[in-house]
Amino acid sequence: MDSGYIYATYLIEGASDLEKKARGIAVGLTVGTWTGLPREKQEQMAPYLGKVEEVVRLEPADDGSPRGRITIGYPMRNLTADLPAVLTTVFGKLSMDGKIKLIDLQLPEEFLSRFPGPRFGIEGIRERLGVHDRPLLMSIFKQCIGLPLDELETEYQKQIEGGVDLVKDDEIFFRDDLAPVGERVRAFERRNRVWEEQTGKKVLYAVNLTGPVTQLPDRAKRLVEAGASCLLLNVAPYGWDVLHRLAEDPDIPVPIMAHPAFTGAIYASPDHGLSAALLLGKLLRWAGADIVLYPSPYGSVAMPRKEALKVAQHLRENNGVHRPAFPAPSAGIHPGLVPVLYRDFGRDAIVNAGGGIHGHPDGSTQGGRAFVDAIEAVVSGVTLEEKAETSAALRKAIDAWGVVKA
Amino acid sequence: MDSGYIYATYLIEGASDLEKKARGIAVGLTVGTWTGLPREKQEQMAPYLGKVEEVVRLEPADDGSPRGRITIGYPMRNLTADLPAVLTTVFGKLSMDGKIKLIDLQLPEEFLSRFPGPRFGIEGIRERLGVHDRPLLMSIFKQCIGLPLDELETEYQKQIEGGVDLVKDDEIFFRDDLAPVGERVRAFERRNRVWEEQTGKKVLYAVNLTGPVTQLPDRAKRLVEAGASCLLLNVAPYGWDVLHRLAEDPDIPVPIMAHPAFTGAIYASPDHGLSAALLLGKLLRWAGADIVLYPSPYGSVAMPRKEALKVAQHLRENNGVHRPAFPAPSAGIHPGLVPVLYRDFGRDAIVNAGGGIHGHPDGSTQGGRAFVDAIEAVVSGVTLEEKAETSAALRKAIDAWGVVKA
Ligand SMILES: [Mg+2]
Ligand SMILES: [Mg+2]
Repeated sequence: MDSGYIYATYLIEGASDLEKKARGIAVGLTVGTWTGLPREKQEQMAPYLGKVEEVVRLEPADDGSPRGRITIGYPMRNLTADLPAVLTTVFGKLSMDGKIKLIDLQLPEEFLSRFPGPRFGIEGIRERLGVHDRPLLMSIFKQCIGLPLDELETEYQKQIEGGVDLVKDDEIFFRDDLAPVGERVRAFERRNRVWEEQTGKKVLYAVNLTGPVTQLPDRAKRLVEAGASCLLLNVAPYGWDVLHRLAEDPDIPVPIMAHPAFTGAIYASPDHGLSAALLLGKLLRWAGADIVLYPSPYGSVAMPRKEALKVAQHLRENNGVHRPAFPAPSAGIHPGLVPVLYRDFGRDAIVNAGGGIHGHPDGSTQGGRAFVDAIEAVVSGVTLEEKAETSAALRKAIDAWGVVKA
Repeated sequence: MDSGYIYATYLIEGASDLEKKARGIAVGLTVGTWTGLPREKQEQMAPYLGKVEEVVRLEPADDGSPRGRITIGYPMRNLTADLPAVLTTVFGKLSMDGKIKLIDLQLPEEFLSRFPGPRFGIEGIRERLGVHDRPLLMSIFKQCIGLPLDELETEYQKQIEGGVDLVKDDEIFFRDDLAPVGERVRAFERRNRVWEEQTGKKVLYAVNLTGPVTQLPDRAKRLVEAGASCLLLNVAPYGWDVLHRLAEDPDIPVPIMAHPAFTGAIYASPDHGLSAALLLGKLLRWAGADIVLYPSPYGSVAMPRKEALKVAQHLRENNGVHRPAFPAPSAGIHPGLVPVLYRDFGRDAIVNAGGGIHGHPDGSTQGGRAFVDAIEAVVSGVTLEEKAETSAALRKAIDAWGVVKA
């Protein structure tokens, strides 16, 4: 592969002449026209011309329709280092061209290094929390909409007393008249400080960043001034480049948690859109997510295990340029799943639970404790059943949800 | 339907108990939890609770999997009037929840009226061009990347001399070092002024708006100051709300043309994402597109005819609040298709061509003229063959591409 090119790999169905299809893309999405050009024009245009890197014929579809995988190189000089430019170039018009799915992108290091990547990443967040030796634990509010600040604050307190490392807003929390975001941040971060004074334990609160897209950087800065320790962003609804600009802004020095809202509209089809691994693993890390929430392989809203693992791989592997980011495989997580989570995602992951915390028979605080003890168990090689002998919270969680063996 | 609710309609496959699924959505995406709440809490939360408006069982899928269509009402008070809030609420988590496609949204007028809609719309653009009685004609550059300004300017001149009403940049034109956007706007708009002085004919040039998302409004303003008459925006890659904020900004008083780049990743699957009619027809109009480009039903990159007509319907029908916007069904358009285009899309549409103009045997100017004559013919009820008797340009176009009978 040539370091001056961006490589995009596609799965295609229905093209009988794959080579021709590939050449059409390489020309059509770069210089527009080629074979008819006079030689001198070709020389002038050659540096901008895409090239066919690989064409692989795959097994036909069930209905006999031809399938293939092709990789096209796009000259780096054709575009700017931002996701709107990359996505428009490699999957703008092409996204509408029959059964075609963009499954991978490889950027040359020079181009990749112009993306901010996570400002904190795994190590930076561990530093902030002072936790280095285990998966982190995050709690999601059971409900946000319609609750006044004092009730939310009570719920917040219950969650941190369970021993969680992070608490996040509900991603659908837009109209917060009863608990305005600035007051919320001040109240919850005050709770965090008091808790730290009492116990030495630090907590990050991921506040939902919302508003007109043009105001998001300013709003983020005001939230940081109000004491915000983490931002939650619905990246796909607001736009990939919003994350990029927040992440690279020196005046927004807090971790950013990317919520996968709406991304199923893009990754879930086998024939269209982008692969989850590319969308949630590569793109969100390049654009600057420190933490990426996405469907775990276990719940009712589930992602196939192989794909979920690949998302985590892309978030954490050495890409030559960026800090690794935390995967937070979510949905359907209860304490009895922690051994499986640990086996699948290891230490550098976030155990994220909503119902699995609030649904604990003794409430949210005991729900958190059950998770804390479950995590302690798996890290020290103890079974949950053993650990439950000295943890009433875990015992009750296991009685409620069972244990899934790793 | 209740005027305080936003109604979202989904196609769902695989849910055996549709009613239960619908109730789960109505609760899960609003107040989060319901049945376990004490009565007083339910009273407090009731205004924020979603409701199931309709559940329709459909024919099972080929594999016997149950299918249905459900409509959920979300309280308007739960969210702000912008597309990130709407999409996160009605299709955030839900987009990842198995086979589910969001096929329609209905907003109450009070909520809808907080979206800007097209600032110019069909009549505003007709005013600007002084053309009221026929479909408009737009030309796409054959190529932009890698060409120096003087060559682009020559190509621009050839296009306007063909009689087109609009010329647009290539949507993949990001790195324009050889023809920087400010200079390009000044050069092409100067060509427009000279052409108008010579012929009385006005032309709009849609310049591709690119850059960091946080800078787009300022860049748009500078382009307007430089004389820009129209902006081209890759809406999905940059973010829906970017269009909204550009459209409502009084300092950006030019029409906005929405390019459908990347939208195939969202609308093309039958089982996931959004319907094209909703995405390209409703959402883009609400957010402020004056013109929407999208695949015509005729070319190789084609949209099913019924869906393409529905996009146009949503763009133009009376929605009680917004100006109608121009549909520009694109790709595969040559002069011989104008009768079919006119039959399908009528007078208030834009005939948009790239290859169908530049591929004319006598070049781009004659290519434009062939279209001008074809449009004149269909509007006055003359066949293309008749018209070709007095139009050499159209004659040659017909000889090259044929005529598709309406
Ligand atoms: Mg939630
Ligand atoms: Mg093009």
